[in-house]
Amino acid sequence: MRRWNGWGDSANNYPLKPSGLRFVQARLGRAEPLPDAELQSVLDQVPASRLAAHPLVSTDPEIRVRHARGQSLPDWLAMRSGEFGHFPDGVAEPETSGEVRKLLSWAEQHDVVVIPYGGGTSVAGHINPQPSSKPVLTLSLARMNRLVELDRESQIATFGAGTPGPQVEQQLREQGYVLGHFPQSWELSTIGGWVASRSSGQQSMRYGRIEQMFAGGKVETPRGTLEIPAIPASSAGPDIREIILGSEGRMGIITEVKVRVTPLPETESFHVAFAPNWDTAVELVRGMTQARLPLSMLRVSNPEETRSHLMLAGHEKLVSVLHRYLGLRGCGDEKCMITFGVTGERRQSRQTLAAARQRIRGAGGVVIGTLLGKKWEESRFRSPYLRHGLWEHGYVVDTFETAVNWKQVTPAMKAMEQAVREQAGDGEQVHVFTHLSHLYPQGSSIYTTYVFRCSASYPETLARWQAMKQAASEAIVANGGTISHQHGVGRDHAPWLIHEKGQEGMAAIRSLIGHFDPQQRLNPGCLIQDSDVTDKQG
Amino acid sequence: MRRWNGWGDSANNYPLKPSGLRFVQARLGRAEPLPDAELQSVLDQVPASRLAAHPLVSTDPEIRVRHARGQSLPDWLAMRSGEFGHFPDGVAEPETSGEVRKLLSWAEQHDVVVIPYGGGTSVAGHINPQPSSKPVLTLSLARMNRLVELDRESQIATFGAGTPGPQVEQQLREQGYVLGHFPQSWELSTIGGWVASRSSGQQSMRYGRIEQMFAGGKVETPRGTLEIPAIPASSAGPDIREIILGSEGRMGIITEVKVRVTPLPETESFHVAFAPNWDTAVELVRGMTQARLPLSMLRVSNPEETRSHLMLAGHEKLVSVLHRYLGLRGCGDEKCMITFGVTGERRQSRQTLAAARQRIRGAGGVVIGTLLGKKWEESRFRSPYLRHGLWEHGYVVDTFETAVNWKQVTPAMKAMEQAVREQAGDGEQVHVFTHLSHLYPQGSSIYTTYVFRCSASYPETLARWQAMKQAASEAIVANGGTISHQHGVGRDHAPWLIHEKGQEGMAAIRSLIGHFDPQQRLNPGCLIQDSDVTDKQG
Repeated sequence: MRRWNGWGDSANNYPLKPSGLRFVQARLGRAEPLPDAELQSVLDQVPASRLAAHPLVSTDPEIRVRHARGQSLPDWLAMRSGEFGHFPDGVAEPETSGEVRKLLSWAEQHDVVVIPYGGGTSVAGHINPQPSSKPVLTLSLARMNRLVELDRESQIATFGAGTPGPQVEQQLREQGYVLGHFPQSWELSTIGGWVASRSSGQQSMRYGRIEQMFAGGKVETPRGTLEIPAIPASSAGPDIREIILGSEGRMGIITEVKVRVTPLPETESFHVAFAPNWDTAVELVRGMTQARLPLSMLRVSNPEETRSHLMLAGHEKLVSVLHRYLGLRGCGDEKCMITFGVTGERRQSRQTLAAARQRIRGAGGVVIGTLLGKKWEESRFRSPYLRHGLWEHGYVVDTFETAVNWKQVTPAMKAMEQAVREQAGDGEQVHVFTHLSHLYPQGSSIYTTYVFRCSASYPETLARWQAMKQAASEAIVANGGTISHQHGVGRDHAPWLIHEKGQEGMAAIRSLIGHFDPQQRLNPGCLIQDSDVTDKQG
Repeated sequence: MRRWNGWGDSANNYPLKPSGLRFVQARLGRAEPLPDAELQSVLDQVPASRLAAHPLVSTDPEIRVRHARGQSLPDWLAMRSGEFGHFPDGVAEPETSGEVRKLLSWAEQHDVVVIPYGGGTSVAGHINPQPSSKPVLTLSLARMNRLVELDRESQIATFGAGTPGPQVEQQLREQGYVLGHFPQSWELSTIGGWVASRSSGQQSMRYGRIEQMFAGGKVETPRGTLEIPAIPASSAGPDIREIILGSEGRMGIITEVKVRVTPLPETESFHVAFAPNWDTAVELVRGMTQARLPLSMLRVSNPEETRSHLMLAGHEKLVSVLHRYLGLRGCGDEKCMITFGVTGERRQSRQTLAAARQRIRGAGGVVIGTLLGKKWEESRFRSPYLRHGLWEHGYVVDTFETAVNWKQVTPAMKAMEQAVREQAGDGEQVHVFTHLSHLYPQGSSIYTTYVFRCSASYPETLARWQAMKQAASEAIVANGGTISHQHGVGRDHAPWLIHEKGQEGMAAIRSLIGHFDPQQRLNPGCLIQDSDVTDKQG
């Protein structure tokens, strides 16, 4: 069963390996875990529902607890401490667009706030009920989880918006197709949630971001039903899909998603190489990307992430042999791990792989082969479980991310890492490392992970995190980065959005929200902060 | 000097070749040309300007004539007959965003309608002044035609929005870069116009549509300046670029365009092949596209276009040898010409070319080589001149286009061609042919050309065209096509937009226009028809 207070199914456990724990302890010092709350103590806090009865709405306390929080660090601390704060007054699980429509009408009739809910995996506070004088209904798309239609000739699949990653791929695989959207949250996040939050997956280099996959669909808005046809390309006015992409539940509830799919690839493999240092590594991957080498994924870890990754992986002896071998080949302490994948037709994949290897060797790098690549593939969705493994030992892990143009990649990364380190507090260490995982000809995403010790209490731990998050966000916008390349805005990033969109961009989004949802019934406070969403001219 | 009543520079003449003329005469019968008006007779019609004096605004009659019409068939008939109808009251040619801002304020102060003007190449009535009680100012970006900045590391170039195709590429080529946007109108159309109308170029397979190139920029809106930063990718809310793309001058005046550029390719070549018939050809190019073969262009002509193309090209003897050779190899009367290009690194291009040839031969096609490919390349921007060549002999040519999913490609093409044929009138023939020129894994553009005889008068010729255009547009939307894949909406396609966007999509666009331009000062009637643009809720 899915955990009520953490990531994934309770059957899945990935405890920290001894070598990993020693590594973290050496960096940060020993730590004391904070005590976890019991589910019952949380259930006891759930207040009576303020909702009128409705056949599609459950007001069961446990269901309300299980839909109250996402997966951000504040969410984690809330769930672990048992201090949830707010709960939805009820949870609806409609099975059709028609039922969603009816629930929206009912919500209007009863003046209810509605929070659309996909997989509940937001790390930016997208689905958290806010204090409100109105009752709050969380509308989960969980039951709309089927492949509705597959047009093989045009390679377009239509899914219920609540279909989670594994069910998307399984239903397609049975027909010989793949979508290829693999965000870190893939096990739990849904196709509608990907659209609503402009998600990006690990193999975006081949399959594109969700923007490139999203061909059309159906959105139930407070104004009425918005149907977006799947046309391959059009010059007929602004693209409505691009208004819904990233709308984060503010403009309507996505109920049906049409996506561009491809036949299952003939072949797929992942490989690891090392470059002698960061500058060489960045130059190398920038060159590979700008030459449009048709890789399916490409990731480069900075030296600290490389070290951490190898230590946390376990296999001490093997790793030590690897260090020695790489050292002899010119990749010493400052080496950077490069992971890359090829996916597709056999012949083209072979050619791509040869070209990639040639470039890596030409830059003084060492290609290791598929062993570590296979390891990456096996554990590609395991990172969210790392929070559990560290938490047990008194450590907290979180991540933040952005995308910047190539010119800014290294300065932005340094500024982001530095900002977090500076906020650690008196004599306290933070372990910070970074990778680039979505590379574009114009620039790259930057994904930073940081680990620190729990403070003596939950509130102090949260305060420490807040200081680091604030500093990191400031560093991001100061370096021309987007406040989110893949996590979305939610409530946590909303204060920073203006740095990317500007005054007039913000006004346009506000105006669209006001257009689709004049009552501000849908997910208020998400994406755009202003309590007053209606556009004030001039 | 640029023609005042047709396409291109008056130094460029491409008269119909004798074999081409005979071919058209055989299909349609001999025809009588309609008489052309003289410039002076048009100048005599230009009324006094209703504009107050402004240092940046010219009210010279010839300048007003030269900015009154685009390049649609109704525009052509208006220019040739000298019956222009309406003229702008003046033309401004600002040199900076600041001057554009000032002109917008001045327009507000004097209650002036403003039509943003790029290259004036619209074929859908984008820039035509409408009857209005308010004076009309055409605001040309022609003087904002320079490469402002080039970030080599991030491969982003910033241009003044009025830079026409040849100047875009020339300024980039001097720095070793290429944009690669080559619409048919390339000689005259501008980078800002491409963004405003969501343009697509002949090598979109490699370089993308303008949506993929447009990284950010500056837009002067009646509300204020909208600055869109160039971030490689973002999950932070709706993409503001996608609101400006296709805005057709209704939301603001694009003054600066940032585009993604690439280094000049190592190699580029264009090739021609033939497939035995349409169904085989479509299956073949769909397969090539869905396999993501990295071609830079791919086009397939239906049998009638193939015949026409070969006849209009001249070289009768050569063509007759070719027909015989292809016939022996299984490509007879129903053969379809396939043109394809490879662009990029030498090795990858070689591999792509080999894979393409293998697929073509595997489908029973014949690869001819680069001779006809070179011909295509030499004459790639010559089609708009064809209207002149035919007109001299009493024939009219026009085109329309759409994009549909693969499932609909052949039915839509047949319906579109049939619709035009049926509208020719009593015993009158229309010569109709089609190609697919922008291919996507999900579907393809369909581009149909039709040639017919002038009627006895201008109004009758226009009426015949209107009947055909109406029928073609109906066939497009009945087959699930976009009303425009590359020409935009303008005023001519506006009645059809609702079939693509739906009621709620239309309302969203109307709402955005109302947001940015509450006074409806910018290009009223373009894109969205309603005289009342402000959104009526409910």
